[in-house]
Amino acid sequence: MTAKEKIESKTTGGFHICIGLDSDIIKIPQHLLKHSNPILEFNKVIIENTYKEASAYKINFAFYEKDGSRGFDTIHKTMELIPDDVLTIADAKRGDIGNTSQMYAQSIFDHFGFDAVTLHPYMGFDSLSPFLDYKNKLNFILALTSNSGASDFEKQKLDNGKFLYQHVIEKVNDWNQNQNCGLVFGATKIDELKNNIESFRQMPVLLPGVGTQGGSLEDVTRTFSLHKNMNFIINISRALIYSDNTEKFAIAISKTIKQYNSTLHSILTAS
Amino acid sequence: MTAKEKIESKTTGGFHICIGLDSDIIKIPQHLLKHSNPILEFNKVIIENTYKEASAYKINFAFYEKDGSRGFDTIHKTMELIPDDVLTIADAKRGDIGNTSQMYAQSIFDHFGFDAVTLHPYMGFDSLSPFLDYKNKLNFILALTSNSGASDFEKQKLDNGKFLYQHVIEKVNDWNQNQNCGLVFGATKIDELKNNIESFRQMPVLLPGVGTQGGSLEDVTRTFSLHKNMNFIINISRALIYSDNTEKFAIAISKTIKQYNSTLHSILTAS
Repeated sequence: MTAKEKIESKTTGGFHICIGLDSDIIKIPQHLLKHSNPILEFNKVIIENTYKEASAYKINFAFYEKDGSRGFDTIHKTMELIPDDVLTIADAKRGDIGNTSQMYAQSIFDHFGFDAVTLHPYMGFDSLSPFLDYKNKLNFILALTSNSGASDFEKQKLDNGKFLYQHVIEKVNDWNQNQNCGLVFGATKIDELKNNIESFRQMPVLLPGVGTQGGSLEDVTRTFSLHKNMNFIINISRALIYSDNTEKFAIAISKTIKQYNSTLHSILTAS
Repeated sequence: MTAKEKIESKTTGGFHICIGLDSDIIKIPQHLLKHSNPILEFNKVIIENTYKEASAYKINFAFYEKDGSRGFDTIHKTMELIPDDVLTIADAKRGDIGNTSQMYAQSIFDHFGFDAVTLHPYMGFDSLSPFLDYKNKLNFILALTSNSGASDFEKQKLDNGKFLYQHVIEKVNDWNQNQNCGLVFGATKIDELKNNIESFRQMPVLLPGVGTQGGSLEDVTRTFSLHKNMNFIINISRALIYSDNTEKFAIAISKTIKQYNSTLHSILTAS
C-alpha cells in the first residue's frame, strides 16, 4: 500500500487519530523499567492496544535521538511492531540543501521504512524535492505550527498581503505534482484553520496540538466536517499515551482512544 | 572552554576554515573499505591531518543518519577524535515545539557533546529557546542559505519592506541574551552578504557554499575583512575532503586546507 492509500483507507473509514509516540523514560509507567528496553516495551503495549483504532503512528525523533544510537535502534524495533496498514510518520522536521536532504530521505524512507515525514519549508523547493521524489510516500510540510512562536515568522505578513504560512501552502500546492504532499497545521490555531481550509485542496493535513497544548478535538473535527473534508489526522501524544501510569495503562489507553473516536464519530455523523 | 571561546581563539588566530565531514561511503577513497568502519577511518585521517589548520569540524547528520544507529555510533566515535580546542558543530538543522526541542538539545549537546548546532528558525522563539538555554554552546540559526530555494521563502519580502531572512537576523539579535547565537549565511549570496554584514553585530557567522556550490572563499573573506569583522567561519566539505581518492589522500587534504589558509591569510593581511 502507498502512504496515500493507507491514510485514505483510515480517514474514509472514520479513523482520524494519529498517536504520537513521544515516549519519555521519565513519564512511562515505572513498572516498565524492569524491561531491558522500557521505551520499546511501552510502545509495544500502546501499539497492541490501539492499532485498530489509530489512523497513524507518529514517532517524534527527538525523544529517541536523545539516547543516540540506542534510541535509533528503538525506532527501528518500534517500526517492526506497527501493522502494515497503519501509516507511520517520522516526525523529524528535516530540511537541508539538496544532496543532504537526499540523505535524510534515504534515512527516513529507506533505512527506517517510514511512510511519511514532517519537513521544514524554510530552505525552499530544492530542500524538499529529494523527499517529493519518493512518489509512494507522504511529506507533511510545516505550514502553521501549534506553538506560540508561530507568530515570529510563520504569521509575518508578506508584501502581497498574505501571511508567510499561506505562501507556504500555496507553494506546496504547486509542488504537489506527485500527490504526495501534506501539511502540518496546528490544532491550536482554529480561526486560521477555518480561514484557510479551502486552500488545503486535496492535501492531507496533520494537526498536532490537541491535548496538552490546548487544541480542541471537537472544534477541529467540526471545521473539517463542515467543509466536507475528511482528509485530516489529529495527533495526540501526551494526553493519550500517559492516560494512566499504573500496570493497567494498556486498558486506560485503549479506553481513551475509543473515547476520542466516539467523539469524532458523533460530530462527523451529526453534520 | 566554552564554544564562544573556542571559535574566538581560532578566528582571532587567523583560522576560518570549517571542515564539513559530509563523509559518503561512495566517495571516500576505496582502499578504506577494508576497514570495519570506513567512514570512521576516513574521518580519523582527515582530523589527524587538519586539526591544526581547522577552525571547526561540522558533522552533517544526514550522512550518518542514513545508516541509522550505526551512523549515530560513527558520530559518537568521530567526536572522540576531535581535539578539545576545535569547535564541533552538529549540522542537524533541528527545530520543533519546546518540549521536543528540549530533547533535541539534550541529544546534540549532552549525548553527543557538540559545542554548536545549526537550527531552523521557522517555528519561532520557543522552538529555539531550549537550545539557547545552554549558555556555553553556540546556536547557528539559518538566515539566508546557500541554495537556490532560498528565494522561495527566505527572500520573500515582508510588508515592512524587509526580507524574511533579514527579519530572522533581527529577531536572533534580540534573542541573543546569552551571547550564544550565531547565523548561517550562504557564501553563494555575496551581494546579500555585503548588504547585511553590519546587522550580524557580534554574532559568529557560519558560511556554507564555498567549493562545489560555487561560493567564493576570496569574496567572502574580502567582505568580512573590509568590515573588520573576523567573527566568521567558512565551511568547506566536498571540495576539501574529496581532494584526492588515492592512498595519498591525507597528504592532499592537508595541502588543500593549507592552501585555503594561505589564501585567507593573504587577503586578511593585505587589507
